[in-house]
Amino acid sequence: MERKVLVEVSARHVHLSKEHLAILFGEGYELTPKKELSQPGQYAAEERVTVVGPKRQLERVSILGPVRKSTQVEISLTDARSIGITAPVRESGDTQGSAPCKLVGPKGEVELTEGVIAAKRHIHVTPEDAEKFGLKDKEVVSVKIDTNDRDLILGDVVIRVRGDFATAMHIDTDEGNAAAMSGEVYGVIL
Amino acid sequence: MERKVLVEVSARHVHLSKEHLAILFGEGYELTPKKELSQPGQYAAEERVTVVGPKRQLERVSILGPVRKSTQVEISLTDARSIGITAPVRESGDTQGSAPCKLVGPKGEVELTEGVIAAKRHIHVTPEDAEKFGLKDKEVVSVKIDTNDRDLILGDVVIRVRGDFATAMHIDTDEGNAAAMSGEVYGVIL
Repeated sequence: MERKVLVEVSARHVHLSKEHLAILFGEGYELTPKKELSQPGQYAAEERVTVVGPKRQLERVSILGPVRKSTQVEISLTDARSIGITAPVRESGDTQGSAPCKLVGPKGEVELTEGVIAAKRHIHVTPEDAEKFGLKDKEVVSVKIDTNDRDLILGDVVIRVRGDFATAMHIDTDEGNAAAMSGEVYGVIL
Repeated sequence: MERKVLVEVSARHVHLSKEHLAILFGEGYELTPKKELSQPGQYAAEERVTVVGPKRQLERVSILGPVRKSTQVEISLTDARSIGITAPVRESGDTQGSAPCKLVGPKGEVELTEGVIAAKRHIHVTPEDAEKFGLKDKEVVSVKIDTNDRDLILGDVVIRVRGDFATAMHIDTDEGNAAAMSGEVYGVIL
């Protein structure tokens, strides 16, 4: 059986802690959901924030809700170089010793000493699909993406199995562009 | 024998025709070589140019010399999206029907109706290395790049054999970042 999986490109975005949301947007502020994401309960918010590095800044960066325990900024390595920081490739949540930046909102600023990462590519898998595809949580796989001009096999893809996931692979804009992806694209787990 | 090849990341750059150089920098102007490139006779010039799209512009873009028959702008698909154009993935020189942009220099501007591409990944090969590696001009191969966090196998890599080449693979910044490349990196032709 071919193990086909939807490949989604994540643009740069920020997850905020409750504390940082209050500093950036004001005490008691709540995010306004704008668009549901493929992962159940997750949404892109109406609100935007500026990510400032030593060389340059990224304006109007998406905030994904709901709030999380820790603030995390996910940018591409192209973005990181452009604003003048060195972001490590990390799994979500693994931000210890990652890159610093400043966040600027309409009501205040936050100096992050760490929290900026380039997301390690991964596949969200439901327990049902994990069973069907013979995949285990934390397993590392390769995924083949066929396009007209830039076929790619991505290694170091982490499998994450959880009951509240929808099955979808997440890569960043550099990776999507390296495959010249456009429209709805499916990869094959090798 | 393992067919190892140096992988070089090409940042965005512009090749100018003599005519466009004259418009942008003034009649009779000549480029000032700043840094030799790996391909014999090619150099990065001191001069820079602004690449303008409908949404945004890229400032201080490198000009590579010497002048060519036609002006060609090579940017990443990240760049293309950022400035608001759709650049096709093309081999160098194959610019017919490619994307438009405006170039702005210190002395004038040029409206390009076509000429903007995202470079198709390729390997410059000397005739000696082609013989040694069993490669033919125009052959399409795959290349494996192993890094700590983002192993990649790039398909659709075009082999170009010529006497005045040095053997080196060229990819763009999206592709280099999709492999999290840093420092001197070698790929293996599969």
